[in-house]
Parts: sequence; C-alpha cells; structure tokens
Amino acid sequence: MRIVETRRAPNPRRVRIFLAEKGLPILFEEQDLMTGSLKSAEFTALNPWQQVPVLVFDDGRRLCESVAICRYFEELQPNPPLMGVGPMGRAETEMWQRRIEFGLLFRVAQVFRHLHPKMAHLEMPQIAAWGEANKAKVEAELRLIDERLAGTHYIAGENFSIADITALVAIDFMKPACLEVPADLVNLKRWFDEVARRPSASA
Amino acid sequence: MRIVETRRAPNPRRVRIFLAEKGLPILFEEQDLMTGSLKSAEFTALNPWQQVPVLVFDDGRRLCESVAICRYFEELQPNPPLMGVGPMGRAETEMWQRRIEFGLLFRVAQVFRHLHPKMAHLEMPQIAAWGEANKAKVEAELRLIDERLAGTHYIAGENFSIADITALVAIDFMKPACLEVPADLVNLKRWFDEVARRPSASA
Repeated sequence: MRIVETRRAPNPRRVRIFLAEKGLPILFEEQDLMTGSLKSAEFTALNPWQQVPVLVFDDGRRLCESVAICRYFEELQPNPPLMGVGPMGRAETEMWQRRIEFGLLFRVAQVFRHLHPKMAHLEMPQIAAWGEANKAKVEAELRLIDERLAGTHYIAGENFSIADITALVAIDFMKPACLEVPADLVNLKRWFDEVARRPSASA
Repeated sequence: MRIVETRRAPNPRRVRIFLAEKGLPILFEEQDLMTGSLKSAEFTALNPWQQVPVLVFDDGRRLCESVAICRYFEELQPNPPLMGVGPMGRAETEMWQRRIEFGLLFRVAQVFRHLHPKMAHLEMPQIAAWGEANKAKVEAELRLIDERLAGTHYIAGENFSIADITALVAIDFMKPACLEVPADLVNLKRWFDEVARRPSASA
C-alpha cells in the first residue's frame, strides 16, 4: 500500500497528519503538481479526476479523495478516534469537517488558484474577481470558527478531530494565498497555537 | 425531531430522497430561501452558517450539513445501506459521493448562483465569468461519470447509494441552471432514466 501525493498541496497533508495521529506509517510517493504531472496519461490512469492523494493498494485498487482515505484508516484503526464516537458524535464531526472544508479550505484554495501567478497555467481560466470575492468569505468563515472556539476546546468538541486537521491545513495554506488571520480572533489563535504544536503538524 | 429546509434547494432534496429510501418519515418545516429568510436572526440562531437543511432534535440540539445528516440516519437505520458496506465499501462510496458533490453538484450550483438573475440579491457578488467557467467543468464531469457508468450499474458500484442521490439531484438542478446533458452520454442516460423513476426521486 502506498499513497501517491505531492507534499506542496493541502489535501495530501490532511491525510499525512491523520495518519501521523493514528501512528500508521505509510509509504508516500511524490508527484510534482506544479509541473502539471497530474495531467499526464500515467497519472490520469491512476485517478481520472487528476487529483492527489491516491491510496494505491498492492492489488492495484485505488482509493481517492482525502476524507474517504481518512475514513478507511479510521475504520481499520479506530484509536485514537478522529472522526467522532457514536452515531451523533460521528455526524457532528462530519458536520464540522464539511463546514471547514467548504467554508474555509475550499475558499482559501480559490484565492490561491485564481490570484497566484504560478497557478495561471493550471487553473484555466483564472478569474481574479472570483479569487478576490473569496477573500471576504474566508474572513467571514474565520469569524464563525472563532465564535465556535469560544465555547469548545477543539472545533468539533472536546476532542481533536479531522475537523481540526482540515482547519490547520487551511490556515497554513493562507500563507501562499497571501491571506492573514485577523489579529482580534483570539479563540482561533489559542486553538491554532495548540494544534500547530502537535507532532503530527509537521507530517 | 424535524428538518428545517426549503423544497426548492438541492441539498435538502438529497436528505429527503435518502430518508425516503430508508423508509423513515420525518417532519419537514419549510423556509423560503428566495426571500432571504436564511439570513434572518431567527434562522441564523438555528444555523450560523445560514444553510438548509437543519435537523432539529426535540431537546434543541441541531445537526447541519446534508451528508452529516444522512450519516446519522445511516447509523440509526443501516438498511438498506446507502453509504457502502464494510471499511472499503464505505470509503469507496464516500469517494464517489465527494467526486459527484464537488465535481458536479457544486459546479452546477455555481452556474446557477452566478448567472441566474434571481440569485443577484443572494449571491454577492455575482461573477458571470465564474458561472460561465463552470459550464465546461460540468460537462467534463458528466463525461467522467458516463465513463464510470459504462462499467458499473450505479455510480459507486452495483448498489444504489448516496452518490447516486447526489448525482440525480445535481442533474435535475441543471434545468434551472439552464444546462443540458450532452446527448452522446448514453451510459449516463441509462442510469438517469432508472434512478429518476425510483419512488424516492419524488420525495
């Protein structure tokens, strides 16, 4: 079993952190996203959606989509639980994961993809107005997360979860997207300073 | 327990179809999306993300995000399974659900939200170039799904699943978005004609 990925992209990092939290060592194989190798015939045969990461099993089967890969490992190795415990806990964790993924990670990615000069040959067409529009959406989402973190230790509740992983990766991805976390979001800062210090954050 | 939703929006429809397939009768309460009622103080207190559907429990707890709501009911009533069976089956179904959600439903929604005149006061700013760019992405995704359906009966494999529900809702949402399925996608047409005839499709 191996994971085909690129270290520079945010989605593979979500899986790397998840596996580090689980203590599962997996072989990673690098693809260079920026040279367009995801559009090669060889990689397209691996994943017609041309996205990393791809979990490749020894018998040739493939599993794509970062959260689907995480769920597979969550079932294989339930401890520590990173996707919630019990029907309501799992549903709530999925709710928070999705809010962070669509509301923050996706929007940061849109700012990066539609405004960064290096993405001009990969994101076609690049639409600067769409990139700009997402800047305000990112800030609005950060404020909602800050409000949430006024009442809970982690995003999905009292335990570290995949929602925290998605948020950590999204906030670190704000740097190449030339975005900054507003200084008045003190709950978010308290949370970030803690999760960014976990050993898994460097995975 | 009740679900606050709007019948005209695609995400609540995913949950209605899911519950119809499970045979679970739930009370639905209508909000009128088009009049901006999701931005009211009352609804924002229910869901700060201002989105439907919201599952409201009798004790006041809320669960948002359509797929999280579906997962809650999948655990409560596992039969018929709509989110896969076994660790690999559940992960593969989630992979397909995500591909269809991001690749198709989200993109159709972008065409609708950024090009339809009725959305001008709800999607701010409306960016026509972004709406237009998503038209080609929708067609590319439909072609990938058609290729997939050349080899499987349903999208995630041989059993009807949440991935089919997301795809059915997305394709029906193409009509108000003024999009058409290309006539040469015969596998997609075979699949659509079957799933659109399921009793749950009218939920």
